[in-house]
Amino acid sequence: MSQSATGTAVRGVVLDEVASGPSFTELHLAAPGPNEVEVTIAAAGVCGSDLHVALGEWNVPRPVVLGHEGAGVVTRVGENVTSLEEGDHVILTWMPQCGSCRQCNNSRPWQCEQVVEVIETKGVLYDGTTRWSRNGSAVHHFAGVSSFAEKVVVPESGAIRIRRDAPLDAVVLIGCGVATGVGAVRNTAAVPAGASVAVIGCGGVGLSCVQGARLAGAGRIVAVDVNPDKLEVAKRLGATDTVDAGAEGADVAELLRDVVPGGLDYVFDAIGRTSTTEASVAALAIGGTAVVVGLPPEGTTARFDPLALSESSRRIIGSHYGSIDPRRDIPALVDLYTEGELDLETLISARRPLSEAVEALEDLKAGRALRTVLVNAQP
Amino acid sequence: MSQSATGTAVRGVVLDEVASGPSFTELHLAAPGPNEVEVTIAAAGVCGSDLHVALGEWNVPRPVVLGHEGAGVVTRVGENVTSLEEGDHVILTWMPQCGSCRQCNNSRPWQCEQVVEVIETKGVLYDGTTRWSRNGSAVHHFAGVSSFAEKVVVPESGAIRIRRDAPLDAVVLIGCGVATGVGAVRNTAAVPAGASVAVIGCGGVGLSCVQGARLAGAGRIVAVDVNPDKLEVAKRLGATDTVDAGAEGADVAELLRDVVPGGLDYVFDAIGRTSTTEASVAALAIGGTAVVVGLPPEGTTARFDPLALSESSRRIIGSHYGSIDPRRDIPALVDLYTEGELDLETLISARRPLSEAVEALEDLKAGRALRTVLVNAQP
Repeated sequence: MSQSATGTAVRGVVLDEVASGPSFTELHLAAPGPNEVEVTIAAAGVCGSDLHVALGEWNVPRPVVLGHEGAGVVTRVGENVTSLEEGDHVILTWMPQCGSCRQCNNSRPWQCEQVVEVIETKGVLYDGTTRWSRNGSAVHHFAGVSSFAEKVVVPESGAIRIRRDAPLDAVVLIGCGVATGVGAVRNTAAVPAGASVAVIGCGGVGLSCVQGARLAGAGRIVAVDVNPDKLEVAKRLGATDTVDAGAEGADVAELLRDVVPGGLDYVFDAIGRTSTTEASVAALAIGGTAVVVGLPPEGTTARFDPLALSESSRRIIGSHYGSIDPRRDIPALVDLYTEGELDLETLISARRPLSEAVEALEDLKAGRALRTVLVNAQP
Repeated sequence: MSQSATGTAVRGVVLDEVASGPSFTELHLAAPGPNEVEVTIAAAGVCGSDLHVALGEWNVPRPVVLGHEGAGVVTRVGENVTSLEEGDHVILTWMPQCGSCRQCNNSRPWQCEQVVEVIETKGVLYDGTTRWSRNGSAVHHFAGVSSFAEKVVVPESGAIRIRRDAPLDAVVLIGCGVATGVGAVRNTAAVPAGASVAVIGCGGVGLSCVQGARLAGAGRIVAVDVNPDKLEVAKRLGATDTVDAGAEGADVAELLRDVVPGGLDYVFDAIGRTSTTEASVAALAIGGTAVVVGLPPEGTTARFDPLALSESSRRIIGSHYGSIDPRRDIPALVDLYTEGELDLETLISARRPLSEAVEALEDLKAGRALRTVLVNAQP
């Protein structure tokens, strides 16, 4: 890496076309603008959304530098940056806060409208431009993070300072999957102690729901998946019961009723398919809550019986990014990890150098890896 | 009325067969058993569920004494009754509490399981028997209330003591429709001050949602109905805007977006048809909540876009009986009425003697009456 007054040469993982797939390549990263910081990436998590984009299932402006879970060290600050300084350890978040939209002003920082309308939709930072280029041509940011690179520039509110004694190649997972899963249980649903909980889907987010339920003191935690290996992991993270839904024509709601006959107080759908969402609602007890956590594909619909809601106080609620306030919740989750209350190692199936990001995505696609963490040798 | 040690001759409105309709007739009412009280009815509200039963849309055990909104004076107490005495003024509730089921023990008194499994389903009181008979043959209770009669016997927990200075022929409405509507807004959804609210359907329950929204300090209250007269009533009760959805092919969600372009924070579906439930969800802002208040017919389904929930923190929640604790909320609503904060007179379109119950049901069916209160001359 060489650094100039105006920018830096860095290597990163770029997706040009879905057909040709992502590649590890040389890029130019401009200096941080006002209210932006440069972060040297120590670790990046390979999470489902990266795969959705790489496979063309989700459309984002391309070419794009992939990666949306990252942790590292602040190495440069732009004008007007007041909350961070060089040397700060940070976890990146794809939900920075503009601080001025209706959601930010309404105590819903996990729904910043500018993030959706500008950062996510246009693949740029808040000011509508990109810091990435290659041979003089613009390259887009992914979700305002693009952590599959040696360095990144992100909004000041997108870099969350954390304690310096936390290992970045573990707590990096907190930035997306862990916050999404634990937050869905503790913030969105606010599961009380003693409640009965089921989690459908035991990937990174679902297993974090399982941990959230354990942290909330749930009485029963039923993990559901089609992969017996993932169910074993769920047990290690706190599941009290498991349901293997891998059989042909398995009826998940019925299988759950076999385990908890009166129905469940909370069901977390960490997958987001029509069938899993409908099963989540069908498995509820009187007064129960189904939480849609997994991101469903666009254009799908799910059905429910409105009488089962109004007659029995049932609820179907969506959870976006675990309803977290990043500046409050991400450092708190890091504390839980350092205190031994939050297990991240069990979620990490491999660590690889950043240069192997393409292989890590292949592993995720093939179901060979639970979560891979990409590490930079010299952050 | 003659009274014996074992029972009383009373007149009431009985439905034998749907085809022949209800009739005002002589009955025998047994003395209250343990944990039961006899209440002499001063007033009874004619509410939608009575009509559903009379029309055969809802099946309950017959013959049955109709009526589920009632207010009166305790005239006899059974063994072990400790919370009520003769002379107490009471509002009847169709949601007494057994005090021992999972819901009663879980701070959800509006979901008592014994009410559903015994009282509603079998048309009897908690002990599985009826106090009503006619010529020696058993007649059923309706919803544990049967208020279309001169006297009734109800569970102790089904008679809620209220202040004696409240006019029974007005506060009688609090027992069902008003509690259901106001409670949906204030308890189930807990609408905060300043929120934007829409209410679809301006019958007794919907208008009570409008009042609940006004009491909650909602910033916008948009009333929706196909009847312009009801919209005028909604304005008197606090609606800031009205939407006439009477035009052929009207798209309620679209009409609501014309009034509140960013979508609504809360939409209350006080009707419960598939189309109104789906419109409620479609009209929501980011973070918005659709509340199914009206009781949908059995066997219907409604569709939603799960991505619109998980991506934008939207919620669909059912509200049963306004999530009220009758002993806490009914006296509090009576207080609000006596303080001039809750308007009941505007909801009452007519008062008639009990003997005209059949005509009052006809008026409700024909849309001629908002709410009729049946009064007993000598309570």
